Amino acid sequence: MSDLPQSVQINEEGPREGFQFERGPIATARKVELIDALSVNEKGLERAIACGRLDLSGSISLTASEPFLERNQNRSLADNIAMQHNMIRLYQRHGIPVERGSIMAAFGCNFAGDTAIETVVDMVEQIVDIAEEHDIVLEVISLADTMAWATPLSIKQVVGAVRERFPLLDIALHLHDTRGMGIANAYAGLEMGVGIFDSAVAGLGGCPFAAHRGAAGNVCTEDLVFMCEEMGIATGGDLERLIEAARLAEDIVGHPLPGSVKLGGSLAALHR
Amino acid sequence: MSDLPQSVQINEEGPREGFQFERGPIATARKVELIDALSVNEKGLERAIACGRLDLSGSISLTASEPFLERNQNRSLADNIAMQHNMIRLYQRHGIPVERGSIMAAFGCNFAGDTAIETVVDMVEQIVDIAEEHDIVLEVISLADTMAWATPLSIKQVVGAVRERFPLLDIALHLHDTRGMGIANAYAGLEMGVGIFDSAVAGLGGCPFAAHRGAAGNVCTEDLVFMCEEMGIATGGDLERLIEAARLAEDIVGHPLPGSVKLGGSLAALHR
Repeated sequence: MSDLPQSVQINEEGPREGFQFERGPIATARKVELIDALSVNEKGLERAIACGRLDLSGSISLTASEPFLERNQNRSLADNIAMQHNMIRLYQRHGIPVERGSIMAAFGCNFAGDTAIETVVDMVEQIVDIAEEHDIVLEVISLADTMAWATPLSIKQVVGAVRERFPLLDIALHLHDTRGMGIANAYAGLEMGVGIFDSAVAGLGGCPFAAHRGAAGNVCTEDLVFMCEEMGIATGGDLERLIEAARLAEDIVGHPLPGSVKLGGSLAALHR
Repeated sequence: MSDLPQSVQINEEGPREGFQFERGPIATARKVELIDALSVNEKGLERAIACGRLDLSGSISLTASEPFLERNQNRSLADNIAMQHNMIRLYQRHGIPVERGSIMAAFGCNFAGDTAIETVVDMVEQIVDIAEEHDIVLEVISLADTMAWATPLSIKQVVGAVRERFPLLDIALHLHDTRGMGIANAYAGLEMGVGIFDSAVAGLGGCPFAAHRGAAGNVCTEDLVFMCEEMGIATGGDLERLIEAARLAEDIVGHPLPGSVKLGGSLAALHR
């Protein structure tokens, strides 16, 4: 219990990955409306500018499953590595910092089966090596459960193995909730000291190339914020406004979205 | 991680607590159809008979929140204790064993706010005392998150406190998923060595007296079985048949139910 972080950084994926799964088209004005609803107030904006969070930043992205890489990006593993070098050169030409590496399908793949823990650790090593070739010191490695294979146990095992080999890297989790494990997996990450999460308001999203029948997408932002705040972990998010944004997201896509707290309500007014 | 049990016992609440939340009426034949779909095969039935699981058994049930007890059962705390003594006498007159105690609203209440950990421990003590007055040795204490206030952290804190005081009692968890924490809370229970869970197929249910706007009910059986089996914890459940039963439950109630694995699918055919 003592391993829980005091605060976490939550990256909202709704307007990016969230909408890509929807049949659409969704009018740009409505997308802007959701982004406005999700946006922070002036003070938050000032803090974001101070943190540099509004700057572009690049990442080095590998995929643990070649069959998925071919379907998702039409590239082989070798082609993808060459592409990462090209992207880094492009980032560097434009003065865009590269601080993050990411691994898709880090917990398993609908096309290739289980992902071995050693494969993930090897892939982090490859990303670190690629970074070093360009004099980049990575700060964050993001592990993506692209096809919702992770359990809390595998989260702990993979995060533990990566941390043991690369103790200086911060670990981020990009979790999908397709099989209902998203919040439990986030909790397992928190117990391992993970302090950075991607999520999507109302649970928008899902990967269009992942061959899922169900619509469940990213782990739900307001449910994640609810869990963290109820456990005393600061998120910087305003849960009541996130719930409003989640309802707006449902209105925009025109069908129910999977998040729970927008239905069950927060506990803010009920604690005594 | 080493605290995870090797196997768990899951009690299906769909036909009992699950249907009570539905507007209905639901034809008895359709209820029987669901029970049949959830039922075990002959071998399982023989095992169940061998375990005595088909016998009636009684329980001693207290509620941590008096305002909720009044709404739910129209009784004061004192009336409820008197009623438990009456029930035990009735059980004993009919030779029905009493092995279980349970505490409703053990993690918080929409009408009374947070439930103090000491209140829960005191209530377990009251239940044990009531049992002793009737020469009963309790085996299981069930902690119910009736109004979905629990987080994985509070699960660990409350289970830890009860276990510390009553190390010989098995602890069961009755979890609701109204705020999306059900599976994460079950995982926290597993990490504390809890080996008995109530759940409802497709996530049927919810308490009609809990003043919830949302429909999310009990933690979903097939999602819980998926998590356990994927982590190597035996449940005795057949996930593919549970998924079929979950789809049948949706057909019976005539609206979508919250479980995820019935949409996302199991991983059985995808592991390699």
